[in-house]
Amino acid sequence: MTMLSRRTVLAAVLALGLFGGAVVDVRAADPDPLPSWNHGPTKQSILDFVAAVTKEGGPDYVAPAERVATFDNDGTLWIEQPIYNQFAFAIDRVKATSNQHPEWKTKEPFASILKGDLKGLAASGEKGMVEIVAATHSGMTTTDFNKEVKEWLAIAKHPRFKVLYTDLVYQPMIELLDYLRANGFKTFIVSGGGVEFMRAFADKTYGIPPEQVIGSSGVTEYQMWDASPVLIKMPKVLFVDDGPGKPEGIDHFIGRRPIFAFGNSNGDKEMLEWTAAGDGLRFMGLVYHTDAEREYAYGPADGLPDSKVGTFSQALMDEATGKGWGIANMKNDWKTIFPGAKAAP
Amino acid sequence: MTMLSRRTVLAAVLALGLFGGAVVDVRAADPDPLPSWNHGPTKQSILDFVAAVTKEGGPDYVAPAERVATFDNDGTLWIEQPIYNQFAFAIDRVKATSNQHPEWKTKEPFASILKGDLKGLAASGEKGMVEIVAATHSGMTTTDFNKEVKEWLAIAKHPRFKVLYTDLVYQPMIELLDYLRANGFKTFIVSGGGVEFMRAFADKTYGIPPEQVIGSSGVTEYQMWDASPVLIKMPKVLFVDDGPGKPEGIDHFIGRRPIFAFGNSNGDKEMLEWTAAGDGLRFMGLVYHTDAEREYAYGPADGLPDSKVGTFSQALMDEATGKGWGIANMKNDWKTIFPGAKAAP
Repeated sequence: MTMLSRRTVLAAVLALGLFGGAVVDVRAADPDPLPSWNHGPTKQSILDFVAAVTKEGGPDYVAPAERVATFDNDGTLWIEQPIYNQFAFAIDRVKATSNQHPEWKTKEPFASILKGDLKGLAASGEKGMVEIVAATHSGMTTTDFNKEVKEWLAIAKHPRFKVLYTDLVYQPMIELLDYLRANGFKTFIVSGGGVEFMRAFADKTYGIPPEQVIGSSGVTEYQMWDASPVLIKMPKVLFVDDGPGKPEGIDHFIGRRPIFAFGNSNGDKEMLEWTAAGDGLRFMGLVYHTDAEREYAYGPADGLPDSKVGTFSQALMDEATGKGWGIANMKNDWKTIFPGAKAAP
Repeated sequence: MTMLSRRTVLAAVLALGLFGGAVVDVRAADPDPLPSWNHGPTKQSILDFVAAVTKEGGPDYVAPAERVATFDNDGTLWIEQPIYNQFAFAIDRVKATSNQHPEWKTKEPFASILKGDLKGLAASGEKGMVEIVAATHSGMTTTDFNKEVKEWLAIAKHPRFKVLYTDLVYQPMIELLDYLRANGFKTFIVSGGGVEFMRAFADKTYGIPPEQVIGSSGVTEYQMWDASPVLIKMPKVLFVDDGPGKPEGIDHFIGRRPIFAFGNSNGDKEMLEWTAAGDGLRFMGLVYHTDAEREYAYGPADGLPDSKVGTFSQALMDEATGKGWGIANMKNDWKTIFPGAKAAP
């Protein structure tokens, strides 16, 4: 390349840099930001939405500070079947600490867990679940609890896929989180799951820092142990971040209304409605689990079975369809489900 | 200037740009980041702390994501005398809405407010304060409450300084917030004040966005009004962010331990202790109100009177001195108290 031609190239680059926006749409040449999504109306509606709210001077422009995106976690960012991962953690904690609780041998729902009787456990219902979570999520410092979760996540395997739970996050949603952040969005988790459980992995796994994780929580109590302050997790619920609790939690923690929200079940309905009710352009989406082969299939239509975990009712599907919310149909919309080739069904 | 000398200057600039860190300490030539602080041990300890935790490769280096700084609000970032500004708002709301509450004419503490009897109001004590706040901070949507606060802040004047309350923020602390953010810190408010009250002005006044404001809060309830979702403020306390509630709130909302914390009263003790108890270098500071002429003087020592608002006990002063926490002595450490020349005593 001669000196002259290098100068010409330089001039062209400078001109593109200065006038590129008017001359060519540089973004059109960018690689696909959502490569694990098949082309279809849901992917297109996401791309269109982001283009519209980030276009300076455009009618739908939203300032970066207001670009708040909220995501449910279980069933939206990672797997939630056959039981919520946090509940699998709680069951493992019951087993691991049963030596310290001889009374559990004869006390339900603990006795069923220790006998490996999942039917007996299921029979204890929601009341049993609450007892198990209370017993395994309180009575220790917040620091020790964080350590327990991290240790469990480092070794516990999913019963079907035989890989770590953090390998069972949804690659298309990871790409979506990255894409939104690259476009100036602040991404939040707003989940019914325990806030401390999620914070133990959300930063590394999703790129979502602890201060942007909102979840259900218990009361903590500040105490002095040997002249050092600790926070003790108490067996008392402070806040349930599910259903109507999601917009309440969003208002409480964020103090701004999202312009983008994604969920996958009835517990996300109010978050999506709250998001939709704001002024200006909005995006509301639902992950629809339709792929029994690569993940799980459960839901309101298409002959799929109902699920007590992550229930997605016909009423919610009707509302979503009627209001034009995006549906991420796992089987049709997602090329890949899990990152890498770590998880095989 | 000849072409040659311009080139020489350019070369020198480039050289400084490329090798400045090794050749000269460019920061030494920077303008003072805290111009409203007099030179003294407290200012120096802040500068030293920030230099140490931001020095890459240094023994005290802290990654930007972990640079969490928490500030009390009343008496730390803005004035808190003669009564908390939010309480002045509540009193004004009682007056403004008394037409809708004929029963208040004979019911304390409302009757005292309506008669302008501040002694009668004071006699109602903390119980009276709680009743006044409950009556004026619930029963409306979060949107309407935000509007009420903004309207009040736009016109209400401080009884002594005769300026807007948001003009009575502390210029040295505004500089400190800016300085920390310029050094990669994320700044949070952690205050006993109402979270929604503070969010109405914190972004514009302090550069602290709503999602970084932590405060006391009431329960909200998600309801549908004419097919539109609203959040209603209920007369029920959810969380009190004061005293031990401050570390609890920090853990609940942020999920990280601060490395820098500033307060001014007994209610900040646990936040400072919690901050101090982490690993690595820490900074803990207290504003000490010693300037009756330019602001107010109250506190544990120096013959100053006690105050029921923003009490700073001798025990806290002893702890701060013993542990080497920074004391921002208003009279000695602050050249300027309020921004601009808006406020004259």
